[in-house]
Amino acid sequence: MSRFDILVTYDVNTETSEGRKRLRKVAIACQDYGQRVQKSVFECRVTQSQYEKLSHRLYKIIKPNQDSIRFYKLLGGRENCVESFGVDTFVDFDDPLII
Amino acid sequence: MSRFDILVTYDVNTETSEGRKRLRKVAIACQDYGQRVQKSVFECRVTQSQYEKLSHRLYKIIKPNQDSIRFYKLLGGRENCVESFGVDTFVDFDDPLII
Repeated sequence: MSRFDILVTYDVNTETSEGRKRLRKVAIACQDYGQRVQKSVFECRVTQSQYEKLSHRLYKIIKPNQDSIRFYKLLGGRENCVESFGVDTFVDFDDPLII
Repeated sequence: MSRFDILVTYDVNTETSEGRKRLRKVAIACQDYGQRVQKSVFECRVTQSQYEKLSHRLYKIIKPNQDSIRFYKLLGGRENCVESFGVDTFVDFDDPLII
């Protein structure tokens, strides 16, 4: 099954403890499918069914009138799309591991 | 000159007042080229020279060892890449204005 790269960015209203709980749940869900590259930005490499599972899971967590989730497909693969300055924590797990 | 869509996401270390100043400067710079879609996420439609100007401007603002700026080219245009749930403040200025 072919995989594609997506970006997940989110804003969760953290004025309440319930909102802070939603924020943690969103991060945990994204962590299950990819890696955090900034506080509320994750890069994931997913199949179509994984994409649907993740988006469904996030949809159930958030409050649509307070929170925002955005998915961006990185067509052509993340290597063709991304340029970064400064702190960059991304690790390419598809790179050969040299021991 | 052809334009393309990019996403700008950033994390700026705001532990100091100087960091909070950098954060404001980054947001103002992005505002000059596009629109905010989440707290630290902007969508911009730019020419290559505008892209270079914006990235150069942001590079001069941030502290590379504390802050992070990521640019993602939305190949094929944002309409082909983005899906959003919840709060969505994006306004398509290229849509015909109906009065």
